[in-house]
Amino acid sequence: MYESTAFSLLNSEPVFDLYDVEATVVQAIRDKGPLSRTDLSVEMDYSRASLTMIVGKMLDMGILVEVGEGKSAGGRRPLLLNINPAFGYVAGIDIGATSMDVALADFQGNVLAKTSEEADVTIGPEPFLQRVGEVVESLLIQMGIAPTALVAAGIGVPGPVEFVPGVLIAPPLMPTWEGYPIKEHFRRRFPAARVFVDNDVNIMAKGEQKAGAGQGLSNFLFIKVGTGIGCGIIVDGHIHRGSDGCAGDVGHICVDYNGPMCHCGNQGCLEFMAAGPAIAAQGTAKAQCGESPFLARRLELNGVITAVDVGEAAAAGDRVANEIIRQSGRMIGGVLAGLVNFFNPETIFIGGGVSNIGHIFLSTIRQATLRRANPLSTRQLRVEYSQLSSDAGMVGAIWLALENIFTVKA
Amino acid sequence: MYESTAFSLLNSEPVFDLYDVEATVVQAIRDKGPLSRTDLSVEMDYSRASLTMIVGKMLDMGILVEVGEGKSAGGRRPLLLNINPAFGYVAGIDIGATSMDVALADFQGNVLAKTSEEADVTIGPEPFLQRVGEVVESLLIQMGIAPTALVAAGIGVPGPVEFVPGVLIAPPLMPTWEGYPIKEHFRRRFPAARVFVDNDVNIMAKGEQKAGAGQGLSNFLFIKVGTGIGCGIIVDGHIHRGSDGCAGDVGHICVDYNGPMCHCGNQGCLEFMAAGPAIAAQGTAKAQCGESPFLARRLELNGVITAVDVGEAAAAGDRVANEIIRQSGRMIGGVLAGLVNFFNPETIFIGGGVSNIGHIFLSTIRQATLRRANPLSTRQLRVEYSQLSSDAGMVGAIWLALENIFTVKA
Repeated sequence: MYESTAFSLLNSEPVFDLYDVEATVVQAIRDKGPLSRTDLSVEMDYSRASLTMIVGKMLDMGILVEVGEGKSAGGRRPLLLNINPAFGYVAGIDIGATSMDVALADFQGNVLAKTSEEADVTIGPEPFLQRVGEVVESLLIQMGIAPTALVAAGIGVPGPVEFVPGVLIAPPLMPTWEGYPIKEHFRRRFPAARVFVDNDVNIMAKGEQKAGAGQGLSNFLFIKVGTGIGCGIIVDGHIHRGSDGCAGDVGHICVDYNGPMCHCGNQGCLEFMAAGPAIAAQGTAKAQCGESPFLARRLELNGVITAVDVGEAAAAGDRVANEIIRQSGRMIGGVLAGLVNFFNPETIFIGGGVSNIGHIFLSTIRQATLRRANPLSTRQLRVEYSQLSSDAGMVGAIWLALENIFTVKA
Repeated sequence: MYESTAFSLLNSEPVFDLYDVEATVVQAIRDKGPLSRTDLSVEMDYSRASLTMIVGKMLDMGILVEVGEGKSAGGRRPLLLNINPAFGYVAGIDIGATSMDVALADFQGNVLAKTSEEADVTIGPEPFLQRVGEVVESLLIQMGIAPTALVAAGIGVPGPVEFVPGVLIAPPLMPTWEGYPIKEHFRRRFPAARVFVDNDVNIMAKGEQKAGAGQGLSNFLFIKVGTGIGCGIIVDGHIHRGSDGCAGDVGHICVDYNGPMCHCGNQGCLEFMAAGPAIAAQGTAKAQCGESPFLARRLELNGVITAVDVGEAAAAGDRVANEIIRQSGRMIGGVLAGLVNFFNPETIFIGGGVSNIGHIFLSTIRQATLRRANPLSTRQLRVEYSQLSSDAGMVGAIWLALENIFTVKA
C-alpha cells in the first residue's frame, strides 16, 4: 500500500560517494586497522605518490585521520592513518516483535551508547518508528551529538525485506508494515542520514561477523531462535539474501510431514514445533497435568509459563522440562544437519531469546546436527552460541550502515 | 593414501599467467562476445591508448584474434576482438559411476567432438583414467589436433572433491579413488594441460550456467537425480563448494526420521528413498506381486526392472508405476521446499539419469516444492529440467577449465 512512495523518495536520500580507490582505502583500513601510506600503497599496488595524493584528499574530506606513529622500517617512523571516528555517527536499530534495541556508534563502529525497551510492532509502523526516532534522539543528546551528525542508520526488522527500497514484504508478524517506507520515515527526522533496512537475522549474522566470534569467517550461518526461527547466511563474507530477499526462512522447513498445522498452512513446520511458544506451550501442559512440580509452582505464581521458565526448571533438575528442551533441540539439530549437508558452513551460531534457555539446548542441537550430517561436513564444524548474544542485532545494524554508506562513483 | 604425491606435484603443473587487466579483457569478451578496443576501454574504464597496448600484447600471445568489423560510431568501422579459438584446446570429462562422457572444445568453448561410453569407477583410478586418456587422445586424433595443443582439462567426478589439489575425499561410490592424484595422472599423458577436478554436480551447474538455461542467472540450484541425489549451488555466479568442498550433499537429507536405514547409517535419507535404485526396487516389487502387469512383463523379458522401465510403464498408463514416480517426486520436492526456504534460488534445474523418466516426475517435484515452500520464495521460482540434459557435465567441465586456466599474476 505504500510502495510507490517508498520508491519515489529513494532518490532524495543523501549521497556520500567515493571513487573506487577511496572506497578501497576505507575497506583496507577497516579490515586491517591503522595503516601507513606505505602499507596502503603495498596493499593496493598503487604508487606511493598517487596514494599520498588520494589520502591527502580523504584527510581533507574528514574521512581519515592521522593517528600517531607506526613501526619504522629503518628511517623516520611513518604516520598511521585510521578512519576518523568523528566523520559521522551511526545508529543501529534492532526491531523485534516485542522489543527495540538501539545503539549509537562512531564511524569506526565503536558503540558509544545503547538502550533497550519493550515495544510492540503490531501498533503499526508510524507510532513504532516515532518511538524509535525519540530513542535515537535521546541517545544523541546523551552523547552531545548534533542530529545532523547522524550520517547513517541500519535497521533490522523481523520479516522479509526487499533490500534496496528497504520495505517489508508480506511480514507475518507485522502485516501493517507491508510496503511501509521506513527509510523515508526515518529521514524525515534525520535528513542527513542514509538508511538501510534488512531482515533481523541477516544483521545478527553481520554483527557476529564484524564484532563477534564470526570475525575471519567467510561461510557461516546464524540461527535465531525466539518467537520464530530464522537464519542469516554469510557466503564469501557477504549476506546472502536470495533472489527475492527472503533466504534464511528456515522456520517453515518441515520436520514432520504429519505434524500439527502451522499458522502458515503447512504441517510440521520447525518453528511451530520447536520455537519459544512451542516450548512454553509444552511447559504449560506439563505444569497443568502436574508432571512437572517446578513448572506447576511457577504457573501458580505467574499465571503463565515462558520458554525461559522451562529453561530454569531444567537447570533446577526438572526432568520433564529437560526433555521439552531436548526435544526442541533435536528438531532444530535435525534441520541444521540438512542445512550442513547442503551448505557446508564453517560455523553455526545460535542466538535469539530462546538461546538464553541454558546449555542443554545448545548441546542437544549440536549432538543432533553432528549425528545426522555428512561426516565430511562436520569434521571442522562448530555449533555455538552467538558471542554477541542479544547485542548481535544492534551491532550488525551499525555495520550494515557502515558498509553501505558510501556509494562508489562510476 | 596418495595425498603427499598429489600435493608435491601441484607445483609442477604448467602455468598460464596473465596480468589482472589481461584476465579482465578475457572475461569481458567471454561475457559479452566480440568487442572493439573502444568497447573494451569504456567497459573497463581504461584509456584507449593503454588498452590498445594491452590488446596488442594479447594478440601477439595468441589469446585474442581480430574478427571483422563492428558497427561504426561515425568514422571507420572498428575491428572486433574475440578469444582465439585456436589458442589451445580443452577436454571436458564427466565421470559417472557407470559411464564416462568426454568432449573436446576450442578455446571459445565450442564443442568440436564428443563421445560417451559405459565404464565402471570401481575398477580403480589407474585403469579408469588410462581409458579416459585414450578417449581424449582419440578425439584429438579425430580432430587433427596435436596432444601438446591440449592446454586444459576439466574433470567431474561423482564424489566430494578437495578442489585445489583435485583429490576425492571419502567418496562412497569409489573408495579406491580416495586421495588419488588425478591431475598428475592426466598430466603424465598430456604434460601441457592444466587440470581441474570438481564434483560432478558442481560442473553440471556450471555447464547449465555457461551454455544452458542458466545463462544470466546468478543464484540457482542444479539437482542431479541418478544412482544418488546431489546438488550444485551457484551463488552470485560462482560455484559454492562450502568450507570442506562438500556442499550440495542433499541426498542424505532426512525425509523420514523413522524411515529405512541408508548405507550412510542414518534413517530415511532422501537418496535411499527416492533415487533411481529406490524407484527400481519398488518397480521390481510391484512386478513380482503382479500389481503392475506392465512391469511384470518387463521383468519377465529383461530379468530386471530399472527406473527407466518404471517411467515407461507410467507413460503407458500404468497406475502403480505412476504412483511410484509421484512418491519419489514428492519426497524430492519436500526437500527442495526446505532448500528454497533456506536459499531462495531463482531456478532449480533437474538433471541426471532419472530425469529422463518422464514429465510426471518433474511436475510432481514442482508441485511438492511450490506447495510447501514460502510463497514469497516461489513467486518467481522456476523448477525445470536441465536444458543441456546429459551434456551438462561435459560442457561444465570444459567451462571449469576455461574459467580457471589463467593464473592472475600478483
